[in-house]
Amino acid sequence: MGRKRSHTSGSSQRPRLWGRHAVEAALANPKREIVRAWATREAAADLPKGLPVTLADVADLGRLVARDAPHQGLVIEVEPLPDVWLDELLTDAPERAVLLVLDQVTDPHNVGAIMRSAVAFGAIGIVTQDRHSPVEGGVLAKAASGALEMLPWARVVNLARALDDIAEAGFWRVGLDGDAETDIASALGPARVALVLGAEGTGLRPNTAEHCDALARLPMTGKIESLNVSNAAAVALYAAAAH
Amino acid sequence: MGRKRSHTSGSSQRPRLWGRHAVEAALANPKREIVRAWATREAAADLPKGLPVTLADVADLGRLVARDAPHQGLVIEVEPLPDVWLDELLTDAPERAVLLVLDQVTDPHNVGAIMRSAVAFGAIGIVTQDRHSPVEGGVLAKAASGALEMLPWARVVNLARALDDIAEAGFWRVGLDGDAETDIASALGPARVALVLGAEGTGLRPNTAEHCDALARLPMTGKIESLNVSNAAAVALYAAAAH
Repeated sequence: MGRKRSHTSGSSQRPRLWGRHAVEAALANPKREIVRAWATREAAADLPKGLPVTLADVADLGRLVARDAPHQGLVIEVEPLPDVWLDELLTDAPERAVLLVLDQVTDPHNVGAIMRSAVAFGAIGIVTQDRHSPVEGGVLAKAASGALEMLPWARVVNLARALDDIAEAGFWRVGLDGDAETDIASALGPARVALVLGAEGTGLRPNTAEHCDALARLPMTGKIESLNVSNAAAVALYAAAAH
Repeated sequence: MGRKRSHTSGSSQRPRLWGRHAVEAALANPKREIVRAWATREAAADLPKGLPVTLADVADLGRLVARDAPHQGLVIEVEPLPDVWLDELLTDAPERAVLLVLDQVTDPHNVGAIMRSAVAFGAIGIVTQDRHSPVEGGVLAKAASGALEMLPWARVVNLARALDDIAEAGFWRVGLDGDAETDIASALGPARVALVLGAEGTGLRPNTAEHCDALARLPMTGKIESLNVSNAAAVALYAAAAH
């Protein structure tokens, strides 16, 4: 705890990514600018030839990243990805499409795992509020296992207004709500679907729920109040993809 | 790091559980013996009258649990739950039942989240190898959000032999494998199903896969190698429950 903040976050405030999948995906992403790289000699052998790499030992790498971060011998400092505009995402959407909207889901592990599932099940993008959502950083990137580089992520100022735009683009907005009467499988629309998920515990904010076309529940026994939010997202994405 | 181990785990080696859902579920479980309880004055007000509670402040509670554990003002020391025997679990299984088998999934966050989903989707129990699976502890219990107290957990010495017993009890054993050709929805049996999941990255061990009746994949795009294991389990449990 006495460690200086600059040691872990970098004075530049640029994101640092770590772990094999997250780093490989960043290197493979033409939109991602890599500023610097550090690696153990062993891990460096797998990196592309052109990349300037500073060799470091495991302990040095540990000081570059979040506490106990499983860096797997690889750390890179990057520029944040260019902004993705919701309009663009909606204009480019195919006939059948699933979009994921997160209402104040703040835990970077969860949002990363959700991005991973979103790519796995073919969602076209993710929409979050600019505030009350995690930053693009190493913990999220590690949990996303490469998906951060693949999934368009639109950050919006006003989620209710974004949901209006999403509806105008022909998406059927399904909000997940444990108290809803309709089952997710029955609530899904025929073509474009936006799945809207709130934070664990609090769920969707009332104004977000009001901007959904349907509220739906996952078919659960009732013995447990809710799923972990990334688990709920995975199930909803599977249900929408199978629909 | 200079902190003594006895401070966080207790010299007694008894599990310590924390967090509102985990503690409330433990108190509600007649099979769970509570040894001691600590709580902030505020959190203590919600505890049952008969329970002897030591009042403590937030910082004191922080020293009783794992680093940065979100204890929410409540920590209890408990006896481990009585052993659950696989035979019992199989004998008591209803006509239609889903059983979850984990092959060396070691991360307690993941196993906890999996237990939470298993209870949510009505699985009758979880089977793990005694070795290479997490201990019954606070991190797992917190992630399980009460499910640790609700879901029978059979620990077996030999997973292959357990899978033989599971088959003899009339369960159709479906192993999750990203390289399988069959889709999970087509691989599910008509009645009793055992879902078998391996660790992220390594997947099922060959000997475990050989003890499955079918190997199946989740319908994914292929852009991402795999899901987070708890996300994969949630989807498989949903698919089996909806089947």
